[in-house]
Amino acid sequence: MRHLFNAAALVIAAATAAPAIADEGMWTYDNFPTAKMQAAYGWAPDAAWLEHARLGSIRLTVGCSASLVSPDGLVMTNHHCVRECVSDLADAQHDYIAKGFYAATRADEKKCPAMEANQLVKISDVTQQVEAATAGKSDRAFHEAERAIKAQIESACGTAADVRCQVVTLYAGGVYDLYKFKRYQDVRVVFAPEEDAAFFGGDPDNFTFPRFDLDASFVRIYDADKPLRTDTYFKFATKGVKQGDIAFTSGNPGSTERDDTLAELEFQRDDAQPFLLTMFAELRGILTEFATKGPEQARTSKTQLFSIENSLKAYKGRQLALVQGSIIAGKARTEADFRKRVAADPNLSASYGGAWDAVAGALAHQRNIYVRYALLERWPLWMSDLMHHAVALNRYALEIGKPDGQRLEEYTDANFPALRQQIISPAPIHAELEKTMLTWWLTKVRECLGTTDPDVRALLGNRSPGEIADALVDGAKLSEASLRAQLLSDGATTIDAYHDPLVDFARVLDAPARAVRTDYENNVKAVKTKNAALIAKARFALEGKNAYPDATFTLRLSYGAVSGYQENGRDVAPATNFAGAYAHATGRDPFKLPDSWMAAEKAVNPAAQLNFVATDDIIGGNSGSPVVGRNGEVIGLIFDGNIQSLGGDFGYDGTLNRAVAVDVTGITEALKHIYHADRLVKELTH
Amino acid sequence: MRHLFNAAALVIAAATAAPAIADEGMWTYDNFPTAKMQAAYGWAPDAAWLEHARLGSIRLTVGCSASLVSPDGLVMTNHHCVRECVSDLADAQHDYIAKGFYAATRADEKKCPAMEANQLVKISDVTQQVEAATAGKSDRAFHEAERAIKAQIESACGTAADVRCQVVTLYAGGVYDLYKFKRYQDVRVVFAPEEDAAFFGGDPDNFTFPRFDLDASFVRIYDADKPLRTDTYFKFATKGVKQGDIAFTSGNPGSTERDDTLAELEFQRDDAQPFLLTMFAELRGILTEFATKGPEQARTSKTQLFSIENSLKAYKGRQLALVQGSIIAGKARTEADFRKRVAADPNLSASYGGAWDAVAGALAHQRNIYVRYALLERWPLWMSDLMHHAVALNRYALEIGKPDGQRLEEYTDANFPALRQQIISPAPIHAELEKTMLTWWLTKVRECLGTTDPDVRALLGNRSPGEIADALVDGAKLSEASLRAQLLSDGATTIDAYHDPLVDFARVLDAPARAVRTDYENNVKAVKTKNAALIAKARFALEGKNAYPDATFTLRLSYGAVSGYQENGRDVAPATNFAGAYAHATGRDPFKLPDSWMAAEKAVNPAAQLNFVATDDIIGGNSGSPVVGRNGEVIGLIFDGNIQSLGGDFGYDGTLNRAVAVDVTGITEALKHIYHADRLVKELTH
Repeated sequence: MRHLFNAAALVIAAATAAPAIADEGMWTYDNFPTAKMQAAYGWAPDAAWLEHARLGSIRLTVGCSASLVSPDGLVMTNHHCVRECVSDLADAQHDYIAKGFYAATRADEKKCPAMEANQLVKISDVTQQVEAATAGKSDRAFHEAERAIKAQIESACGTAADVRCQVVTLYAGGVYDLYKFKRYQDVRVVFAPEEDAAFFGGDPDNFTFPRFDLDASFVRIYDADKPLRTDTYFKFATKGVKQGDIAFTSGNPGSTERDDTLAELEFQRDDAQPFLLTMFAELRGILTEFATKGPEQARTSKTQLFSIENSLKAYKGRQLALVQGSIIAGKARTEADFRKRVAADPNLSASYGGAWDAVAGALAHQRNIYVRYALLERWPLWMSDLMHHAVALNRYALEIGKPDGQRLEEYTDANFPALRQQIISPAPIHAELEKTMLTWWLTKVRECLGTTDPDVRALLGNRSPGEIADALVDGAKLSEASLRAQLLSDGATTIDAYHDPLVDFARVLDAPARAVRTDYENNVKAVKTKNAALIAKARFALEGKNAYPDATFTLRLSYGAVSGYQENGRDVAPATNFAGAYAHATGRDPFKLPDSWMAAEKAVNPAAQLNFVATDDIIGGNSGSPVVGRNGEVIGLIFDGNIQSLGGDFGYDGTLNRAVAVDVTGITEALKHIYHADRLVKELTH
Repeated sequence: MRHLFNAAALVIAAATAAPAIADEGMWTYDNFPTAKMQAAYGWAPDAAWLEHARLGSIRLTVGCSASLVSPDGLVMTNHHCVRECVSDLADAQHDYIAKGFYAATRADEKKCPAMEANQLVKISDVTQQVEAATAGKSDRAFHEAERAIKAQIESACGTAADVRCQVVTLYAGGVYDLYKFKRYQDVRVVFAPEEDAAFFGGDPDNFTFPRFDLDASFVRIYDADKPLRTDTYFKFATKGVKQGDIAFTSGNPGSTERDDTLAELEFQRDDAQPFLLTMFAELRGILTEFATKGPEQARTSKTQLFSIENSLKAYKGRQLALVQGSIIAGKARTEADFRKRVAADPNLSASYGGAWDAVAGALAHQRNIYVRYALLERWPLWMSDLMHHAVALNRYALEIGKPDGQRLEEYTDANFPALRQQIISPAPIHAELEKTMLTWWLTKVRECLGTTDPDVRALLGNRSPGEIADALVDGAKLSEASLRAQLLSDGATTIDAYHDPLVDFARVLDAPARAVRTDYENNVKAVKTKNAALIAKARFALEGKNAYPDATFTLRLSYGAVSGYQENGRDVAPATNFAGAYAHATGRDPFKLPDSWMAAEKAVNPAAQLNFVATDDIIGGNSGSPVVGRNGEVIGLIFDGNIQSLGGDFGYDGTLNRAVAVDVTGITEALKHIYHADRLVKELTH
């Protein structure tokens, strides 16, 4: 049992958002609202059902969800979650993105260079430990104490290489839970369809419904070089879903901001989203045109472009929700009302009354440093593989000698294994793409921070962004994974003695990047964190226990039903079928079905269901989540939300928000009649 | 004299915006606030001064302002206003953008393919005529009657080929003035510096100050193949400006929305600006990367990219003003207050009380059609020269047989000459760039309107955007200016009988484009226009006469003073000099001064002034405007505003808004010691 105070914090969302609609909620497995679901659906899962679903759920470190679907460690996830893996395995002769991948025998299954699978085996409440360590601390000290105790708890828990431990902050600090995962680092790809099938309709259809995508793939977990034997897998349903079917989604929603204050939403609307939208739109243009330079450029940039287009549409949906919906006005109303109630109670007012203004103050500071923090500290890591490796190696050398609790959080003993795996990943690095991305990044650094900024002068000197990018990439030896592994294993002294233009640049970048990160962590993040917890506590005092925490890319269970909806006055049916897919095809990219589909048109059952929508409350990170039926079978595979769901960061509207899934019977149909993947069909339907 | 009622409408801005700051205002020449300026500066211009300044001012149809600066028709404007001209005149052997252009003798002056110069010779009030024609008319009928009477007045006035007449709607329909221009269609380029000098600092420095740009060029008006002889020119000042100097700007601010309602500002903030920002950012990325494909691609796309980056920064400034400044809140306050006062008077309430809601209703409709209107009706015209010509020729055939007052407005007798000149312009068309732009445009049509939209299906069929673009460009014969001229001169029947893939595509586009245009004009524009006039009338009734009308790309006079300002707590000096330019140079693009400048470093006076800022209230369209001193000499050349001026569409803040100009003494210094343009120096300083 949680002690009363922490359980108290469970109320947040219901109080800040509009009244919760029946199916709202991304519930932690240890606080599933059984009574509420029972009331709405006349049935709810028991403890055994929940444990089976939890252990059948898999988190992929690439930022996706997945599920065990056979006793031999077979894992189902989205095509877009193994995209990077099959792209890394591909070469100019084997374009697994275009042609798909199928291991006809177990020996043909190929290891994904940078994929790790985690299974959540235990949740323990560590709130008391964390609170004891942070008690009475002020902003910066609070944040550092919290980080140190979390690192200490994680480190004490993660005693074996195959264990990953994470202290998860829930309810804005009202609850700290220790999540213990079994780690699997040998994940091999078994099947991925052609991209033209997985992402049929491409960016134009992305975040829309009706859809016709086979956004499905299979990987297998290996343990000690053998397929993982497991009992906790989901059986494949053999009947397609229908309107009204109960549908659970078990996965890892990445993050939501439903408990944010009004000032935070305004910061998102006025600063963060507009900045991200224009930057990503420009980068989309860069990569779109880069891809026209030739087939090799198209192949090497496809994953990056896909990811950017996906993010861009998500940002657009978020921004629309903020400017056009009632979210901001609703938040203004409920927050003003709530603050009045806090102010009316002298005790609450003394303890919590200043929290909103403290958050607003932190945001005023964030306005000044937001762009610098993004450009110098965050973007180098995703903008370029080479820069990622150079920054990470240099930082490793600087951090690893410090006590665990004082390191940047990604270098703590608990977190570093994941980063190490990225650093030593043998995924190929494409020099021309790297140059293009680095040039663009440096151009934005100069444009956004200004030509006379001392950090910009230090980084660019008199050279142009393009010159620098060429020099860094041409001079970099870090494109060899073996060198990176060697440097890591040799340690700080060797890394410090190592020089090439790229690593030397990362060293110049470190000081300004670290400075703005420190500023952000101390004067923005820590203040927001601490005051969000105060607000959460005020809520409990006034409103009691009734809600789910904002998403944290940890395992959650959503419940709902298969259900169509209305859009612009027109009914949208809950499911599509193969006949619809063939009718939607024009033969031209991105509405071109692959040859395998065209050849199989007669063999496929046109009425077999392909995609469906359900009311489940999901968000990015839920990609690859199993949709589970009442009987515990997997009935679907989440791969998207409709456009109305994109405001889900800030709220949930059950009349319109829909999760979009592949019907598993459609997967079976395709594996049988299009791909003739008999080995796989047999394993799924044994 | 205007009759009382129209004069009444002159109040709008002072009432809607924050209290006018001393130097606010883009004044019409026939309503210059002499008393106000006299009160602020102890001096104001007399009628002779004003007439001389008006006749010395030139409007260029490329969207710029300019000034006569010699008795032989020499005209000064910005480099970025002749950029298209010198780019059109360039070829792979003569890169006038990179190397600059100088006609050492008069015979070397080259005709700009698509430049027309207009001189405002007369302003007459035609309000009574227009009001007689529109009296008692409702929305659509009002708009059509207004358009018909305007076309009729313009046509009656524009009786000669060298006369251009335009009925200008001022004060949201409170006043209609007939502006009569002398047209000059033979404009030849005399001098343009290297782009590295004109746009030194490039996009990073754009809209900032201090600046160091020689964004100046000279063209010459020819009349009957001889240089225009004129008395109404500005003499070049021989002393640099100093803090506090009186400075007028005489030019053509393009448009402002300072009188818009709150609902209109919210539409801009939530719909229009975010759409434009993301679209232009993406296109910027496309063109940035296109330019890396080779020197020819870089050369042919440079003008387009420049224009897009410029627009993008302006949109960013506008959006910032809407989300971060006090403009929306201020408008909400003043509008609510004003509506209360209208509601309190039964007569005013009956006549005008419904206007705000009517505008809001039109905007609700505009939300639904805005993107379609942009994509189908507006963008084809600027996105691609070929598509522009095809649409324009096809529409010409469809429109020219109709009575003048019933035509689309750009095909009326008064307006078509300008469009004709664009159609027959011999400016080169770059096939690869055209394909890139058309592909992108069609991709956005599909993405934004949806893959199942009937208009999208009609335009794209089963083909991909790239396939269509290739087919249109490869099959187009309209790249020959002579064919376009021939088709125009042969007329509608010949055009209708002409077929190629491009023109046939324009025919398919016409119906959906026209449909959304009609919808927009009838249900949005006409409603807004009519109700804006009602609001203007309500204002007069309550507040009297005191203001300037929103900008309309017609001649205005702003007054102010040379003045530094404060930015982030630091003083920004009012002027820069050549020493500063050399110090700002890194030798790398875009901070690379051209060879001519590097070679002349010792010869140039380092203290000679290069750029300065003044408080004059300007906006896009003012580019190329002369800055005129108290004694009637030209002291500067407007080429930009600082970043704080970009919210100028919606308001003016004299503490921060600054116009950015080239000091004419810097131009003389450069012509003498860097360019050795002795002929030009002699003409300017005779």
